[in-house]
Amino acid sequence: MTRIVIYQQRVEFGDCDPARIVWFPNFFRWIDAASRHFFIQCGVPPWHETEKSMGVIGTPLVDTHAKFIRTASYGDVLQIHTSVAEWRSKSFVQRYRVTRNDEPIMECDEVRIFGGRREDGSMRALPVPDEIRRLCE
Amino acid sequence: MTRIVIYQQRVEFGDCDPARIVWFPNFFRWIDAASRHFFIQCGVPPWHETEKSMGVIGTPLVDTHAKFIRTASYGDVLQIHTSVAEWRSKSFVQRYRVTRNDEPIMECDEVRIFGGRREDGSMRALPVPDEIRRLCE
Amino acid sequence: MTRIVIYQQRVEFGDCDPARIVWFPNFFRWIDAASRHFFIQCGVPPWHETEKSMGVIGTPLVDTHAKFIRTASYGDVLQIHTSVAEWRSKSFVQRYRVTRNDEPIMECDEVRIFGGRREDGSMRALPVPDEIRRLCE
Amino acid sequence: MTRIVIYQQRVEFGDCDPARIVWFPNFFRWIDAASRHFFIQCGVPPWHETEKSMGVIGTPLVDTHAKFIRTASYGDVLQIHTSVAEWRSKSFVQRYRVTRNDEPIMECDEVRIFGGRREDGSMRALPVPDEIRRLCE
Repeated sequence: MTRIVIYQQRVEFGDCDPARIVWFPNFFRWIDAASRHFFIQCGVPPWHETEKSMGVIGTPLVDTHAKFIRTASYGDVLQIHTSVAEWRSKSFVQRYRVTRNDEPIMECDEVRIFGGRREDGSMRALPVPDEIRRLCE
Repeated sequence: MTRIVIYQQRVEFGDCDPARIVWFPNFFRWIDAASRHFFIQCGVPPWHETEKSMGVIGTPLVDTHAKFIRTASYGDVLQIHTSVAEWRSKSFVQRYRVTRNDEPIMECDEVRIFGGRREDGSMRALPVPDEIRRLCE
Repeated sequence: MTRIVIYQQRVEFGDCDPARIVWFPNFFRWIDAASRHFFIQCGVPPWHETEKSMGVIGTPLVDTHAKFIRTASYGDVLQIHTSVAEWRSKSFVQRYRVTRNDEPIMECDEVRIFGGRREDGSMRALPVPDEIRRLCE
Repeated sequence: MTRIVIYQQRVEFGDCDPARIVWFPNFFRWIDAASRHFFIQCGVPPWHETEKSMGVIGTPLVDTHAKFIRTASYGDVLQIHTSVAEWRSKSFVQRYRVTRNDEPIMECDEVRIFGGRREDGSMRALPVPDEIRRLCE
């Protein structure tokens, strides 16, 4: 059983382009919010707290693959069904199913890491923290 | 020999997030602009003209796959090297290599279609128009 | 008594800039959504319907004046209290008070028009339609 | 003689809304970039350097007033003519004239401060630093 958290998103006029449909980069804005929302719903503290407690400053994106199935437009309300499809030692696959009620709109699989800061300020992948994984399963 | 068009993009303060790096949905904003810019540089008329002449209202995205290699931040100037990696009968693969001079930052392969309107207003994939393909090769 | 409609907005990580506060153009994104939401809550049909029935294609912005009182950051939930402060013959003043519960965050007064299309495609201000005004008071 | 710096901005498809014109919050995105660009062109170091040298972490916006004169759409190239119209003791007025070649598109006057951090992390207005003012006049 994989835990699924649903994030709801209204589509606004300004999210749509001259073709009157959602301009696709906006889906990634919403998916990023759904990603953070997933961890919060699972009880993971906000990143500015995990930075102090375990060095995790966020979950930077390494790879994303999305399929656009149906268009959406303003007035629509979308549901983003978010889960972690796979845990790896130093990364994880976060999965999104965007629907308009029963209709599939878009699907996305991302590879993210738990990022920490190196001394020179650059980012590195930390081993997946057990306490975060336990909260999300 | 594949034709490559370079689109240049400044990174601004507001493109960056609290981690001080480009918030990733902004890469898709820029890639969408680079896609349109590619066709314009190849001599393809703007979509509001092709809509009248051949029914093409744009190149909606069907699938996208991106890898994030290095972070970028404000003050950076990026180059988006854009080409068509593959022509299919009713779609094409548009490829992007985002660099900061010699450093690779991000890579993306998209499947797009040439979209036309059905009578009910919905979108359908048109056969790749020969005259557009010729201009882009 | 002026009618006030409240639009709620979560602040997301990606809405914030490297100073860790909401990047101000995002307030205008939300205010524009609150503007449209106001008319919908008042019972005004969507613009693609009013375009057919009374020629109104939207409420383009002519002038906006905003004061930024307190910063907001991700995790915050904001309320946008929206009303029409003044009806003129060919324009109206739409007023927004953005709060985080009891705290004022931002205030904005806009002048908008009910826009119609001229034959050449350009926009013109229509007289404020009585039926819309009645619904919003 | 007031110093004016010009920032150029292409309008992209995704900057436009279903009415096929620039969605107005995008003007504020560009104006914020023009603001930062003004200081850089005047020789002011980036904010992460001024933070160390004089405590200035940026120029947060206090008040903005904009007039929208003509619409713009994708394919347009805009010029943002930026200057400081007035220096006050703890704030300044930054002025923008957005044109499409000879045509005025939009005008904006902002009040900004030079922001520093209080010990509790909140922001306060610093006296306008003489060395910055001298560079910008």
